[in-house]
Amino acid sequence: MRVKGITAKEKAEQLLRQAEAGEYLLQLRSKKGVSLAQLGEKVGVSANYLSEIERGLKVPSDLLIRELAGYYGTDENIIFKKYGKTPLAAIEEVNDNPTLQKTLTEIRRNKKLTDDQKQELYDKVYELYQEFINKGV
Amino acid sequence: MRVKGITAKEKAEQLLRQAEAGEYLLQLRSKKGVSLAQLGEKVGVSANYLSEIERGLKVPSDLLIRELAGYYGTDENIIFKKYGKTPLAAIEEVNDNPTLQKTLTEIRRNKKLTDDQKQELYDKVYELYQEFINKGV
Repeated sequence: MRVKGITAKEKAEQLLRQAEAGEYLLQLRSKKGVSLAQLGEKVGVSANYLSEIERGLKVPSDLLIRELAGYYGTDENIIFKKYGKTPLAAIEEVNDNPTLQKTLTEIRRNKKLTDDQKQELYDKVYELYQEFINKGV
Repeated sequence: MRVKGITAKEKAEQLLRQAEAGEYLLQLRSKKGVSLAQLGEKVGVSANYLSEIERGLKVPSDLLIRELAGYYGTDENIIFKKYGKTPLAAIEEVNDNPTLQKTLTEIRRNKKLTDDQKQELYDKVYELYQEFINKGV
């Protein structure tokens, strides 16, 4: 399988992002006043692994991010964003809806759409959703 | 971390799905007239691993499915569907668009929407896309 090429600069940026996200998780744990061992008990992974995450050496899985956000009572999307990961809730929504899968696949394969047109389309989708819920749904 | 519960029946269904998908991949290889070793060379994984996939014992990664579909000249979404996996193209579309991520996250978190209403909304999104491309975009 062809492996996606990554430059040293991209690798460095990724590590810096992980480091910042890890620091954020460390701050949340400090505020909560729990040890790595206590947190590990709660979320079901080892203290050592959590320490690696907080030091930016490892990236938590989507489900672990959800567990951590739930335990700390924070919005999980903040953590997904810090890691540059796509929010799990958005992925789940796609997983559950074949119509949405079909629409997004067609958009993906439509090579005529420019990035600006796609942005315009997705802005319209957001407006459509807003209208849909404001209509008394 | 809490592990999602899976029943024996679900496990059996999953294995049957893998078996069928594997058979489909075996058929594609037979038509092409290549050996597991030759295919392995092309897609960069071992013949043994490919054999496990064809026998339904392993599930190929999203990227390997793409490689296989490309090599066999078949629509990758057919293979994703056979595995019950979300099409990679749809996921990529979400990965690339923060506005779409925001919209889908809000929909996911809107507990007032029923499944029928969601279906209605996603049908409307598909119509919106059709109108968008037919408008001479």
